[in-house]
Amino acid sequence: MSSTPKSPEPVAGLPLLESIRFDLRGLVAAIAQQHDTGEVLMLAWMNREAVEETLATGRACYFSRSRNRLWRKGESSGQVQRLVDIRLDCDGDALLLLVDQTGVACHTGRRSCFYLAPRDGVLAELTQPEVSPEALYGA
Amino acid sequence: MSSTPKSPEPVAGLPLLESIRFDLRGLVAAIAQQHDTGEVLMLAWMNREAVEETLATGRACYFSRSRNRLWRKGESSGQVQRLVDIRLDCDGDALLLLVDQTGVACHTGRRSCFYLAPRDGVLAELTQPEVSPEALYGA
Repeated sequence: MSSTPKSPEPVAGLPLLESIRFDLRGLVAAIAQQHDTGEVLMLAWMNREAVEETLATGRACYFSRSRNRLWRKGESSGQVQRLVDIRLDCDGDALLLLVDQTGVACHTGRRSCFYLAPRDGVLAELTQPEVSPEALYGA
Repeated sequence: MSSTPKSPEPVAGLPLLESIRFDLRGLVAAIAQQHDTGEVLMLAWMNREAVEETLATGRACYFSRSRNRLWRKGESSGQVQRLVDIRLDCDGDALLLLVDQTGVACHTGRRSCFYLAPRDGVLAELTQPEVSPEALYGA
């Protein structure tokens, strides 16, 4: 992503887990994209264990920075993400997960987390919730 | 992106720049997506100044962590990104830039930085460079 990375770039022929450049926190950014429509659903973070679990189970597992633990996407809401493919970027510090999202990705009940955009100088909501957060997580 | 953010979430009606939750380094993650095809091109970082310049000029400007300065995408290669729209996510710590990419986004000469994927246990290159890095940046 930068034109002058400081450490070796990932190369073909090595396993994915050996090629990811986790940051000082042990995390790597992970974009989730709906595999067929191309919609960008969310940006989250993964540690090594989350990547391993995602590859092993075929379901997206992230690392929650706020809860400081593995975050099995959909474990409480049922809105799981089936992994279709996973990509690593040119300098090894970002992942792109192509997923099949069950229901909505966003905790607000919207399909995508990226629903705010500037309009006339202030943020506007481009989409409305498809389900209520209460229905997703319980009251 | 997390279900339990610790600080206030962005709300409609406020300016974008007041709503971004920059991290301790003063940065926010920014995904660049080709606006019409949906292809995810790259993940980069922006500081406040980069967001301001991007909004003012309509061309993507990032912050290079390796060079520790503003990175006007395409300033040396000509591979600029025209801003079509910009989105903020539900917890305010990630941006999605919908862009019109001139040429290739990746410094390796590939359209997208996300060209590596595990195949048979090791990373494979899904695409080949469309132009040589030398042609982009000079020998």
